[in-house]
Amino acid sequence: MDMKEVTIFSPATVANVSCAFDIMGFAVEKAGDRMVFRKISEKGIRIKMKNYRELPSEPEQNVAGVVALAIIEKIKPDFGILIEIEKGILPGSGMGSSGASAGGAAFGINQLLGEPFEKDELVQFAMLGEALASGVKHADNVAPNLFGGFTLVRSTWPLDVVPLTSPETLSVSLIHPLIEVKTKNARNILKKSLLMKDAITQWGNVAGLVTGLLTNDFGLISRSMHDGIVEPVRAMLIPMFADLKQAALDAGALGCSISGSGPSVFALSENLSVAEKVTQAMRDVYTGLDVPFETFTSGIGKQGCRVVDENYEK
Amino acid sequence: MDMKEVTIFSPATVANVSCAFDIMGFAVEKAGDRMVFRKISEKGIRIKMKNYRELPSEPEQNVAGVVALAIIEKIKPDFGILIEIEKGILPGSGMGSSGASAGGAAFGINQLLGEPFEKDELVQFAMLGEALASGVKHADNVAPNLFGGFTLVRSTWPLDVVPLTSPETLSVSLIHPLIEVKTKNARNILKKSLLMKDAITQWGNVAGLVTGLLTNDFGLISRSMHDGIVEPVRAMLIPMFADLKQAALDAGALGCSISGSGPSVFALSENLSVAEKVTQAMRDVYTGLDVPFETFTSGIGKQGCRVVDENYEK
Repeated sequence: MDMKEVTIFSPATVANVSCAFDIMGFAVEKAGDRMVFRKISEKGIRIKMKNYRELPSEPEQNVAGVVALAIIEKIKPDFGILIEIEKGILPGSGMGSSGASAGGAAFGINQLLGEPFEKDELVQFAMLGEALASGVKHADNVAPNLFGGFTLVRSTWPLDVVPLTSPETLSVSLIHPLIEVKTKNARNILKKSLLMKDAITQWGNVAGLVTGLLTNDFGLISRSMHDGIVEPVRAMLIPMFADLKQAALDAGALGCSISGSGPSVFALSENLSVAEKVTQAMRDVYTGLDVPFETFTSGIGKQGCRVVDENYEK
Repeated sequence: MDMKEVTIFSPATVANVSCAFDIMGFAVEKAGDRMVFRKISEKGIRIKMKNYRELPSEPEQNVAGVVALAIIEKIKPDFGILIEIEKGILPGSGMGSSGASAGGAAFGINQLLGEPFEKDELVQFAMLGEALASGVKHADNVAPNLFGGFTLVRSTWPLDVVPLTSPETLSVSLIHPLIEVKTKNARNILKKSLLMKDAITQWGNVAGLVTGLLTNDFGLISRSMHDGIVEPVRAMLIPMFADLKQAALDAGALGCSISGSGPSVFALSENLSVAEKVTQAMRDVYTGLDVPFETFTSGIGKQGCRVVDENYEK
């Protein structure tokens, strides 16, 4: 009995976890896209955007599409695939919108094909979508999107994704100011070099953050969430960043930094109840300003992409 | 019944564990100094060097002495302390010789005084000895010397020492070419800045190394032991470094790099039997050369400084 259709949830992700710039990310449990993959008789890939119809639906120009094309190029199924995409993560939010489309496409098609690929291989396919979206073939978002939880991307070439355990109750607050920050621009303002002493401070904090996550040490996670290199430069692109961060910490957050390349800002907290207070504190900073925004409060998405519904042929 | 005398073993340490420059170190089980601490009636500190008598024995100019003076300045005991030092680690070896004297002094006197200080405080005292030895108040060696095992020094100001677990059987090979490399010189040849992309590669490896140690993943430890920043520069100070490293890896080592600021070279292996082969392979590289050398093969020193004998007053 072959699968005819599968519906999946593809989670939002936070990449560049404070000090862990370009090497770490995590999945968000309660924010993400919904994608349906359906076998069709006409070969090839068809994309249907259920919202955000301004995004291109030609497979070659669509983030999910290029991933799907690469997979069927390899497997050559005797059927076509229609992908319906309902974005829950706004493009340009810094919450891994393109990563969710790319990772979700790899995961969903793999399900429809009977899971011929391992997660590592799905990450490789999904990176093609990131390359289309931002010009850089990176795994910061698609790795946690596919593996779930926190992931370390120790190396991109060759790809070395290491899933990291994290404290059971760890929770995230996210605030997304509805302004556009292009990943390319956020990359271009970064300095090309840094002082050795600042690099040492940063990798000391990276080591502390990883240790804190793996040993469930909230204090160490908190002491390690300092980014002296990227955050100070990118903060200028985000309205009231310093105030958001101070409000989050005052409300009990373990740490607070920029999600991906922004403009979303995330904070980690010991549990969901603290995270709710932290989200409220960040909302209060923006209330009364002219900047529209949305917020999320969630556990860590331990599972990554997941099947929510499936239909089989009779 | 008061302690009259205590004899301790103070282990050698390997700092700058490959990629983890300036933030990580570990204790060596089977190489170290032996130190005796004895109460004497005349107040103050007296130092007796049992070997290496060319090292200064005036307390103010002796690495163990300055640590001892700082402790009795704080506690003001109504007796004096004689410290007999038998160095098992050659000064200038890069195996934490000054760290062993400094950490050992802090540990031994703390024992004699009835343990008034926590390990973190002992590290603070011991750092004064490092400042005398190298001009830099660092904890890379004294932290693993006192805590044992692997330690992360996430931050020096304020001091944040995090003990890390490591695989039970992990073992170390050390080769010490008997040439002098001054820590100050080894520091001065380092560049003051680096490229962002190289820094990211480095902290990806740091995160991988920490994860590998904490999760007993030998493969990940091995994949992460790459230092693209410091090792390539300092290697030129060490005769045949590239050959030593290649020989160690060919013999089955997980990784190989410079111990501290050199000239000693260390390799990590899955177990003692592989480590013995690795040591032999490194010996073979030096055999026939005019460079005299010594080697060590050992487990990781899980305990750090430890009491080996004690005598009480009647």
